[in-house]
Order: sequence, then C-alpha cells, then structure tokens
Amino acid sequence: MAPRYAPSLRSRLPLVAFLLETFFLLLFVFFVKIEHQHEKIGRKSDSTLFISSYAEFQDVHVMIFMGFGFLATFLVRYGFSGSGFNVLLAAMAIQWAILINGFLLPQRHHRREIHISMKSVIEAELCAASALVAMGAVHGKTNPVQLLLMALVEVTGFVVNQWILRTLLSADPVNSIMLLHVFGALFGVMVSWVLHREGIKPVHEKEKTDRKTGLFAMFGTLFLWMFWPSFNSALVEDYRWDRGLKLTVIYGTYLSLAVSVVMAMSVSMLTSSKGKMNMDLGMLRFTDNGHHEMSSMSAQVHVQSSALSGGVAIGVAMTAVHTPWIAMTIGFCSALLSALGFRYMKNHMLLAFECHDTCSVLSVHAIPGILGWFAHLFIRLASNERTIAVQFAVYHICVLLITTCMSLVMGMATGLFLKWSIWRPQQDRKCFDDQAFWEFPNLVVQK
Amino acid sequence: MAPRYAPSLRSRLPLVAFLLETFFLLLFVFFVKIEHQHEKIGRKSDSTLFISSYAEFQDVHVMIFMGFGFLATFLVRYGFSGSGFNVLLAAMAIQWAILINGFLLPQRHHRREIHISMKSVIEAELCAASALVAMGAVHGKTNPVQLLLMALVEVTGFVVNQWILRTLLSADPVNSIMLLHVFGALFGVMVSWVLHREGIKPVHEKEKTDRKTGLFAMFGTLFLWMFWPSFNSALVEDYRWDRGLKLTVIYGTYLSLAVSVVMAMSVSMLTSSKGKMNMDLGMLRFTDNGHHEMSSMSAQVHVQSSALSGGVAIGVAMTAVHTPWIAMTIGFCSALLSALGFRYMKNHMLLAFECHDTCSVLSVHAIPGILGWFAHLFIRLASNERTIAVQFAVYHICVLLITTCMSLVMGMATGLFLKWSIWRPQQDRKCFDDQAFWEFPNLVVQK
Amino acid sequence: MAPRYAPSLRSRLPLVAFLLETFFLLLFVFFVKIEHQHEKIGRKSDSTLFISSYAEFQDVHVMIFMGFGFLATFLVRYGFSGSGFNVLLAAMAIQWAILINGFLLPQRHHRREIHISMKSVIEAELCAASALVAMGAVHGKTNPVQLLLMALVEVTGFVVNQWILRTLLSADPVNSIMLLHVFGALFGVMVSWVLHREGIKPVHEKEKTDRKTGLFAMFGTLFLWMFWPSFNSALVEDYRWDRGLKLTVIYGTYLSLAVSVVMAMSVSMLTSSKGKMNMDLGMLRFTDNGHHEMSSMSAQVHVQSSALSGGVAIGVAMTAVHTPWIAMTIGFCSALLSALGFRYMKNHMLLAFECHDTCSVLSVHAIPGILGWFAHLFIRLASNERTIAVQFAVYHICVLLITTCMSLVMGMATGLFLKWSIWRPQQDRKCFDDQAFWEFPNLVVQK
Repeated sequence: MAPRYAPSLRSRLPLVAFLLETFFLLLFVFFVKIEHQHEKIGRKSDSTLFISSYAEFQDVHVMIFMGFGFLATFLVRYGFSGSGFNVLLAAMAIQWAILINGFLLPQRHHRREIHISMKSVIEAELCAASALVAMGAVHGKTNPVQLLLMALVEVTGFVVNQWILRTLLSADPVNSIMLLHVFGALFGVMVSWVLHREGIKPVHEKEKTDRKTGLFAMFGTLFLWMFWPSFNSALVEDYRWDRGLKLTVIYGTYLSLAVSVVMAMSVSMLTSSKGKMNMDLGMLRFTDNGHHEMSSMSAQVHVQSSALSGGVAIGVAMTAVHTPWIAMTIGFCSALLSALGFRYMKNHMLLAFECHDTCSVLSVHAIPGILGWFAHLFIRLASNERTIAVQFAVYHICVLLITTCMSLVMGMATGLFLKWSIWRPQQDRKCFDDQAFWEFPNLVVQK
Repeated sequence: MAPRYAPSLRSRLPLVAFLLETFFLLLFVFFVKIEHQHEKIGRKSDSTLFISSYAEFQDVHVMIFMGFGFLATFLVRYGFSGSGFNVLLAAMAIQWAILINGFLLPQRHHRREIHISMKSVIEAELCAASALVAMGAVHGKTNPVQLLLMALVEVTGFVVNQWILRTLLSADPVNSIMLLHVFGALFGVMVSWVLHREGIKPVHEKEKTDRKTGLFAMFGTLFLWMFWPSFNSALVEDYRWDRGLKLTVIYGTYLSLAVSVVMAMSVSMLTSSKGKMNMDLGMLRFTDNGHHEMSSMSAQVHVQSSALSGGVAIGVAMTAVHTPWIAMTIGFCSALLSALGFRYMKNHMLLAFECHDTCSVLSVHAIPGILGWFAHLFIRLASNERTIAVQFAVYHICVLLITTCMSLVMGMATGLFLKWSIWRPQQDRKCFDDQAFWEFPNLVVQK
Repeated sequence: MAPRYAPSLRSRLPLVAFLLETFFLLLFVFFVKIEHQHEKIGRKSDSTLFISSYAEFQDVHVMIFMGFGFLATFLVRYGFSGSGFNVLLAAMAIQWAILINGFLLPQRHHRREIHISMKSVIEAELCAASALVAMGAVHGKTNPVQLLLMALVEVTGFVVNQWILRTLLSADPVNSIMLLHVFGALFGVMVSWVLHREGIKPVHEKEKTDRKTGLFAMFGTLFLWMFWPSFNSALVEDYRWDRGLKLTVIYGTYLSLAVSVVMAMSVSMLTSSKGKMNMDLGMLRFTDNGHHEMSSMSAQVHVQSSALSGGVAIGVAMTAVHTPWIAMTIGFCSALLSALGFRYMKNHMLLAFECHDTCSVLSVHAIPGILGWFAHLFIRLASNERTIAVQFAVYHICVLLITTCMSLVMGMATGLFLKWSIWRPQQDRKCFDDQAFWEFPNLVVQK
C-alpha cells in the first residue's frame, strides 16, 4: 500500500539547514566585516547618502519578504508554504549572496575581506529576488530541501553570470544585475521541465485560488507594485549628486507600472471567452480537456501578475529611457504581451513541452525582460550613429545570449540534481498542499 | 426570462480603457517632461529635499493603493473588486491628474510643458484620493466603466475647483487641496443619490462583512491610519528649512488620530443597543424593518472608519493648529461626531432621502472635514483682531460654499450621465458581488 | 441559570476610556509643547536628522500597530479583538508614555514642560511595545477594560524602572529601554498567573489557528521581522555623525534575524514528533492528556515567533556587538532556545505552575532577552581587563535583578487588581472569542 503521508523531511531539512548555516557562519567569522570607512570621509553628504540607501534598502527588503512572500500565497491550500518557504529561502540566499558577491565581485580594493555596506546588502537582496523568481516556476511541486538547494545554486549561477558579463564584456553592473528576471525565469522553467510530473496533468485539483487567498496574493502584488520604483533605482548611483538618472528611473518605473496595470485588466477582460462571465470557463473544467488549465487560475491572479510586467521591462531598459512616454509605451506593450502570454501560453507549454510553470514566470518575468532588452536596443540604435550602434548591438546580443545559455544549462543541471530521490520529493497527490510540511491539528478536528 | 448573468463588459471596459490610455499617452508625448532643473541648483540641500519628498511620496502612495484598496475589501463577496478596481481607478486618475494639474495649475513659469516632480506626483495622488473617497459612496453598485468615468470627472471637477479657489480667492494651495475629503464625499453621495436602486432597499443580502474580510479592511485602515501624518504634511512646504509647520502638522495629526481611535471604539460600544452584545442586533434583521441596515455592518467597520476621522478633520484645519491639545480636541470631537453619524445617519439617509452610501463617506469624510473647517475658523477668529477675523470668516465661508456647490452640481451631472444604460450597470441582484466581474472557477467546483 | 452572553462592557469601557482620555487631554493642555528649538540651530544637518528620525519613527510605528496587531490575529475566533484592542491599547499607552516619560525622564533642561520630538515619540512607542508584549501573555483571557488598565500600569512600571536604572546605576538610556522585552514578558506572565482560570485547562477549544488566520499572523510577524533593524537602532544616537554604532546595530540585527528564521524552521521540524507529519499530533488532542496543548498551535505560529527571537536577543546585547558573526551566533542560539522553549515549555508551565501564556511571551521575549543579557556580559568580560570586567558584571547583574523584581512585583499587584470583579471579565467559555466584544450579525445568518 502507498504511504498515506508525504515523506518526512525530519532527517533532511534540519540537517541541511544546520550544516549550511554553520558553514555560512564560519565564512562570516573569517571574511566579513562591517564597512565604516566611507562614513568617515565627507561626513554630511555621506550621512545623507546613508539615509537614502537605508530607505531604498527597506523598500527592497519589503518587496522580497512581503511582496514575493504573499504573491506566493495564491494557491488555496499552499499559503503557509508559499510565504514560509519564501522567508526561509530568501534569508539563506541573502547570506550566501553576500558571501559570493564579496568573493567574485569585490566592491573596492578589499583583498580577502568582504565589507558589508548598504550597497552590498541591496545587491544580495536582488540576487535573492532572482532565486525567488526561479522558485515561482516550481512552486508547489518541490519540497523545502529541494528549494533551498535550488536557491543556492541559482544565486551562484547568477553571480557567476554577472562576473562573466562584467569581466569579459565590461558590462555595466546595474544593467547586468537587472537581467535577474530573465535569468531567474529561464532557470526556473528548466528546473520545472526536468522535474515534470505526469500527475499534475492536465490540471491538479489543488492548483486553484479562492476569494481569501486571492486577496492575500493581491496584497503581495501591491507591495511589489508600489515599491518597484525603489527596486529599479536602488543601484543607480548618484555620482556627484547628479540625480538625473535616478529620478528618471523612478518616474519611468512609476508611469510604466500605472499603464501596465490598466492594460493588464483590459486585456484580461477582453480575452475572457464570454465577456468576463467566466463561470462557464469554470464548468469547462469538467467537460473539455484543452482549456481547463486556464480556468484553474482566477482572473485576479492573471491581472496581478501582468500588472507587474511593466516594472520588469522598464528595469531592463531603464538606463536608456529618458522621457516619460517611452516608459509608458514599454509598460503598455509589456502588459499586453504578458497578459496574452498568461492567458494562452501556460496551457500550451504544458501540452506541447510537458513543462508546467506554476506562477507563469515565463510570461511575467522572461517575456517582459526580453521585451525590455529589445526596447533598450532600439532606443540605442535610434539615438546613436551607425558604427557605434552596430557595436552596441553586437555587445547587447552577446549579453542576452550568455545569460540565456547560462540560465538554461544551469537550470537543467540543477533539475537533474534535484531529481535524485535522496531529497524525498512529495507525491503528486501532495503537491500544492501545506499538509505535507506543516502541522494542522485543527483540520482534523473539523472533519 | 431575465438574463442569468451580469451584462458582459467585454465590449466596454477594454475599449474605454484602451482609448483613454492611448489619449493620455499622446498627451504625455507632447507635453510632459521630467524635471531636472531644481536638482542642479544647490546640490546638497536639494538632494536632502529629494529624499524627504520621495519618502513622503511613498507613504502617500501606500495609502492610496494599499490603504484605500484594502479598506474597500470589507464586503464579504466584493473583495476582488474592492481592491482591484481601486488600483485601476487610482492608476488612471493619477495619470489624468498629472495632466490636468499641469494644464490648469502650472507649478512654475512653464508654458505648454508639464514637468513631473515629486510635488506634482504627490498632488496627483491626492486628487486620486479625492476620487477614491467619492467611489466609496457608490461602492458595489456600479461597474468598472462607470467608476472609471466617474473618477476622471471627479478629478477634473476637483482640479477646476482648486483653480477657482486659487484664482478668485487666492486661497492657499495646501488648504484648498485638503478639501479633497469634503469635495469627494459630497460628489460621491450625489452620484449615489441619482443612481439610487430600489433593489438594495431595505438591505442588500450581500452587503455585509465576515471575520476575514473585516481583517483585510482593518489592514487597509491601519495603513491609512499609520501614514496619515505624511498624507497631511506632504505638501506643507519647508521654505528655508523652517520645519516648524511641517513638524506641527505631523505631531498634530499623530495625536489627533490616537485620540480619535480611542473615542471611536468607546462611542461604538456605548451606542450599541445591548452593551456590545450585538447578536440581538443581528436578529433584528429578520424581525424589524427600521434598524437592520445598522446591523449589516459589523462594529469593526464602524470603528475602523471613525478612527480615521481625526486625520480628516485635522487635515482641513492643520495650518491653524499650533498646539498638541487643540489637535487632540479636534480628533476627540470628530471621532464622536463620525461614530454617531455612522451609527444613525446611514440608515436614516436611506429611509428619508433614498440615498445609499456604502462606505458612509458622509460620516467619515464630509462631516469631519466640515468640522475641521469650523475648527479652522474658530481658531482664526480667536487669535486675530476683529477686522481681520471678519475678513477671514467671509473668505473661509466662500471657500466652503464654492467647494460644496461645485461638488454637488458636478456629482449630480455625473450621476445623470452614468445612468445612461450604454454603460451596462449590473442588476440589483449582482450588486456587491465579485462574480459580475471576476472569474471564479473554483466556486463552481464547490457547489 | 448562567447568563448566555458575555457581560456587557457598555457601562465600563466607554466610561474608563472617556475619563482617561479627558485626563490625558488636560495634562497635554498644561504641560506639552511641540519642540522647535533644535530645528533652528544648524539647519541643514538638523533637517537631515529630522528626515532620518521620521523614517525610523515610521518603521517603529508600523511595527507597533501593524506588526503586533496582526501577530495577535492568529487565534481563529479572536482576530478582531487581537488587532482592534492592540490599536486601542497602543494609542492610549503612547499618550501616557509621552506624559510619564516627560515627567520622570525629561530630555533636556525643560522644567514642567514636555517637548514632543521625534525622539520622545519613538521612546513612547517603545514603552507601548513593552505593554503589548505583556498583553501577549493574557491574550484572549481578559476584556478590553482590564487590558487598558494593565497597559497603563505596565507603562508606568517600565518608565519607573528606567528611572531607577538611570538614576541609581547611571545606566545607558538605550540599554535600559531595550530591556522592554524582559520587563514586558515577566510582567505579563505574572498577571496571567494571578488571573489563571481553571476553565482553559487542559486546552481551550477556541485556542487554535486556521489557514487564514495563520497567514494574517505571518503578515504581522513579517512586519516585525522586516523593520526590527530600525526598532533596535532608532534610539542609537549619532553624535557628530559617527554612524559606526548605528550601522553596526542595523547590520547586526539584520543578520541575526536572517539566521534565527532559518534555525526556527529547522528546530520546529526537528522537534515535531513524526517528521513534520503532525496530523497525528492533532489526533492526540482527543486521546492523550499530557501533550495536546502543544498541538493547539500550528507550527506556523511556532516558527513565526521564534523567528523574531534573534531580534530580541541582539537588541539587549547590541551596544557590545561589533562583528557580524557574533550577531549571527546570538541569532542562532536564541532561535534554538526559543523554539525549544515554545515546543516544550508552554505546556509544562501550564501543568506545573498553572500559568497559561497565550503567545508564549516567555519563550519569545523573556528567554532571548536574558540570553542577550548574558551575551552582553560575556563579550564585555572577554574584551576588558579584569577589574573593569568585574565592576561591569556587578553593575550588569544589578540591572537585570532590579528589572526582574520590578516586573514580577508589579505584575502580581496588577493581576490582583484586575481580578476584582468590577471589571467584568468574560466567562471561561467566552475566552478567545470575538463575540464577547464585537457585533457579528452575519454569524447569526449563517446558522
């Protein structure tokens, strides 16, 4: 007889987490210091700089823990895991990102020493964001041990990718870190493809939202949406207090998001088969085989995710965008593409490629990211003279190619590694279900 | 036979939103630039100014999208619409407010050019807040197309009103924008009066809260409550770094809100018919006809809304309040009035005037606003000599009269315009119900 | 026959709140002014200081009202009370703390005048935090009148304790205010011990969480978790812009919390009786008498609370911690102790001492606080030469002894005072239940 319960992780998760945490702690003992120097030169301006950085750091911090965490609560029976594992992974990924960023991409002429500063912490949080995007693709289908290992590999891959881009192509640090959406999404989709389970096809009974979890997810989405201007502008530096670029990024992201939320709602309603009276869609679930996947998400989730695509796209293109209307046009197009992708692509990817992408990270992060990349290319081609433009195009294409290859290859390798049964994945029946991992005494009582 | 479903908005909302968005985008192409100038003169102080403005902007931003959005989720079956439409409206209203503010109330000597700055964005968000207040009165009884048009008309009216006040009466910009509560509430109540439906009388079965939606609403309320000091102080300028007034406004709002939350709870419990054992009140619902409306809201919503009234009142009076105890007294009185109004007025307004005000904006925004106006008047009368005092009183009465007339007339006109059946309002039965607008596959499954 | 309903507080709460509020208002009239002086000397740097303080104040403000408020919603039928009473108590406690802090611990040479400044408001909020910690121990077992009186006595005791420490021992203000966790937790546990009810033993049927209230609590926890660096660093002053200590506290708290969240999850899973398949634990509830208390909390709550222990511990030790790894080690140990305490102690305390501690404040605040105190001691002993070390140890032990005695004695006195039946405590059956205090018309409908 099959076991009634999900396999216990009692002998796995505490051990893995304990060992990793001890390992990180030892590295911190030997290599990490708190940076004080730059506070001593030029006091007043640096104190202003500090306040500004701390506020930006907190906005990003809220996005990572509250935004991503509650966005992940949309599944009706997977809310505890969604927000709980998000905190666990992000806390581990940040510690690891501080370390590996310090080793591979030292900020100044520090040798064998990592200095913690607001900038290094913000960078670490962005690397963690990349891992959380990847986690979206396998959301609900992997156990916390697998997620933890995947997050650490993803962060390593992402930092190595940045190192390659910066060393080989002398890429701009801000531009290369903003590829986090593309890298994370492709990595996650590859992992999900390798780990594909037949049992969740055509649609898993627990992969759905209800009124309350939809509101919790709305809530996480709003935090991401509101603080995205800080997310994009946090690493744009203000040399000599020239706030031009930083301000442009803030207003651009703000307007792009405002447009993309309007378009996401419109497109969602337009593509809904009978106006928005989607009760019929729900019924399809039991009669039709081809379109039910679409119905397993409410339009709410749909709208939520697409509303964020404007922020993703503008993030990739931002250093080239200098007028509000270009930002708004990018938001317009990315919401259009993302909402269409969300409506039609998830379903077809599952049928055609056997690749299941729970949070549709491909439509929400990869496609808008690549759209932003194209926007950046076009703006530069239009504004520069010919020779420079061609040179830039070659460089820009290399950046995307390297990032794509790195993420796909590392994602596949990680998937194969996580397939190993030593990690005790839960059964298909226990996917998208908190009860595999959390105590629920009161559920028993209610039965 | 009557149609089973709410009328589809597939041919309306996407079209309207798309056309408006394209229109806005074109206006942005030709007229809007990002302001860089003032960052170039006097670098250090301006960078400080920027940080301060950006933080205040974010507080206001959180209030608009998170605060108002989740305050609107209190109805048990209308949570998605409450928060979703709030984002849609606010995003459109802000874009429109940036444009129309730029045209009618240009900040400096810019001709035919609108410069986006932190100040202009904060002003646009306050105009959007005014539209969201108006939306509270018709909450659940109108479809998103109607809401969208109403929001844009309301913003236009509010900006025109400001233009009149500033041009004809040379009113202080901060004082005139703080009338947003009075203008929005009266506008919304008039629209609701014109659009009155017999079907929701004496009480609509879906107009109620439950434990969870009450907590979501608590949550939105708290965001409004916590960040209200920034909301009031955001536009108080610090000429020459004299932070006196700004600080006074911050502490005054803070103390006023602290007092009003205490009074709101006390009054709510005092006026509850049997101590607070309001199970009986609930039973009234099925036996008595005259008082059930009151029972369709839980005391939680009651408390929540009245707790905010201190912020509204102090906002209108703030430029005249210079000591903490006056601020606290204003909070005390406004919570008292607002809680009594909430308990008794909504019900009687429905019976007497056939005017249904879902979120009781009249008690929460209009009455405390007018109280604040009186407080302002009394303080100035008490502290000035006679001739100046009379002069001020005449001016102050004109300001309120113009605002009231503008809002009532425009509200009525908007109501008549929205009554047009081309906008496809939902049936009475589908009021306060998400299912008219959102996909809910899982509800079918549960049946 | 026993009364069917909880006793009405209609004649108690409004009266008590009204009298207290009027009393506070009168004191504000005569003694409180808004501070303007320090804004006039040295304009630029002070404006920077102001911005920084206002941002920190807001972080603390969010923690008090949103963080503590939603952490207290974890009980399935006590969400409204949890968040509502939290706002009521905190609003009253802050007003009282501003007054009593001003009388006992005047900030400058102000005689008979209390000047409100960012610093005084932040201190008042920390005193309120202390009262909220104490409230955690009696959560769900006392009515709002009792809570209100308890909060005011607690704040008084805490401020008197600070006054003793500062006057007799010349203790550092920051160190003495950071004992708020120890003081609050011990005070609350004593009150709970005196007020012990037989009816909630062995386990009250309503003392449990469900999926949705667990998420609301997660949400409050995350706000506490995210803003804790500001909570600890808010009162660390930056004399002459030497941001060394402030930065160290921020990074230290951040890393300590990151480690403690990982450890809390691991320990929780490790100590769960059958891996994490805790369905069995739930069943124990009906068969076994000794261990069911443990099962009445979901692991979610368990994890949430222990995750915060790192912030508590580092808060007490922070002025002595100068390297990241020490902060991380403190986070590591405190999460370990706190998670073990949560799992085993709450249960045994109830059986052995008849002391029921709803939110396990003993494990979450008192134990990590004392651990932090020991860490502080060890670091100072290790880094100083012998005579100074011994001197410090004596002083440090006195500080803890005085605080402990004060909190235990005052807690017991308060408990005896609250036992008076004039305060109309609810019946055992109505513990952990909103219906004793809030209107729920819709519940009647559903029956």
